[in-house]
Amino acid sequence: MARTAAALIIGNEILTGKVREANVQRLAHELFRMGIALKRVIVCPDDIETIATDLRALRAAHDLVFTSGGVGPTHDDLTLPAVARAFDRALVRSPVIEALIRGHWGERVTEGHLRMADVPDGADLLQTNEVPWPVVSIENVFVLPGVPEIFEVKLLMLRERIGADVPFVSRALYTMCDEGEVAALLQTIVGAHPGVEVGSYPRWRDPTYSVKITFDGRDPARVDAALEACRAALAPELIVRVE
Amino acid sequence: MARTAAALIIGNEILTGKVREANVQRLAHELFRMGIALKRVIVCPDDIETIATDLRALRAAHDLVFTSGGVGPTHDDLTLPAVARAFDRALVRSPVIEALIRGHWGERVTEGHLRMADVPDGADLLQTNEVPWPVVSIENVFVLPGVPEIFEVKLLMLRERIGADVPFVSRALYTMCDEGEVAALLQTIVGAHPGVEVGSYPRWRDPTYSVKITFDGRDPARVDAALEACRAALAPELIVRVE
Repeated sequence: MARTAAALIIGNEILTGKVREANVQRLAHELFRMGIALKRVIVCPDDIETIATDLRALRAAHDLVFTSGGVGPTHDDLTLPAVARAFDRALVRSPVIEALIRGHWGERVTEGHLRMADVPDGADLLQTNEVPWPVVSIENVFVLPGVPEIFEVKLLMLRERIGADVPFVSRALYTMCDEGEVAALLQTIVGAHPGVEVGSYPRWRDPTYSVKITFDGRDPARVDAALEACRAALAPELIVRVE
Repeated sequence: MARTAAALIIGNEILTGKVREANVQRLAHELFRMGIALKRVIVCPDDIETIATDLRALRAAHDLVFTSGGVGPTHDDLTLPAVARAFDRALVRSPVIEALIRGHWGERVTEGHLRMADVPDGADLLQTNEVPWPVVSIENVFVLPGVPEIFEVKLLMLRERIGADVPFVSRALYTMCDEGEVAALLQTIVGAHPGVEVGSYPRWRDPTYSVKITFDGRDPARVDAALEACRAALAPELIVRVE
């Protein structure tokens, strides 16, 4: 299997610069380890029609879609209603989540809290002994919270459910090259090593290295071969380290 | 004027988790100060067709589009060719940029370096005395580099060219509220204060406050009125500070 994924990050706070987005790298890194190719990330506002439209498009074009944000009790938390709309399903109150909410808030419970129990009809609730509060998913869409600490816990809960594909391996040469001077070499290596993605990342005023050259792929032998071809073509004094 | 904007962040390194995206918050914050509403951010891979397709869609739906990344000399730097494709224009070598490149690299100059002088036919080059290396733009698309330090310098160069709209103002109540308990109040305030965006952001295990409630809008009097209505409705001991 070689699945693709997309992420929909929901939140005005990111689009107004109040908050720096914090979940994409965590998700991207985890998917890369699992061999799932993250192909697209969209950040959209707290608007139910926009979220629903984006979800429909992303889930049609990718095997897995992860959302981040918009799952709390207030008026600007619109992700679950938008997921329901994207699937043309009703929002229904989950007795499982309602019981968790009533257990937590007791007699202070409000309709705001209980709104967090409203999920698309037919949604799956994934719970574990360690994390009783469920991850809501429906078909290929997984709904995660925006708070980074909880996002991470829930992402790890999903590992087993989603399963891994043939994992990617990634190696890197840290060099003192000038990017323009190695451009032709890298083009040659890309052409000679199908199945290996070659990336070139300059550093700005870093005394320790100037360009990191990365080699990613699913076949470790091919990745190694591309890296070694590059290393062999560079003057040894230009290579700072190999990872 | 009340313009909208979008950003297209180009780079496999973000989608594979190698690098944490670093320019969106800077851009979002600057646009918010200028009164321009950032409505959408897309992160896409280093793929010329994907970049061109995204650019066409984003620039049709928004007044301004900013790209980040993909402007260096190597094979994975595809933004300027993709911009040319999105506008159905040829890539042509800019004599201005070519002269800068030859001046910088001298006799070490390579075809890789010179590729950075290839811009869409008819593109504008914005230079200043402080920053001779130009920002390339074409109609409503502004091409910025991914390296955060340079992204920031070039973004500031664009301030005057783009000009500000009626700026947004943003105020905030830092509270010890429970989000579910204030949900109904916030819904009432949203209904009674058109033109003010109200946001509610919980903190995870922060001893200093539990929920930040934000009030954004273009009319300071309306923003103040919404904040004051909220403050007046909350028990004083729940309010940690007002910004």
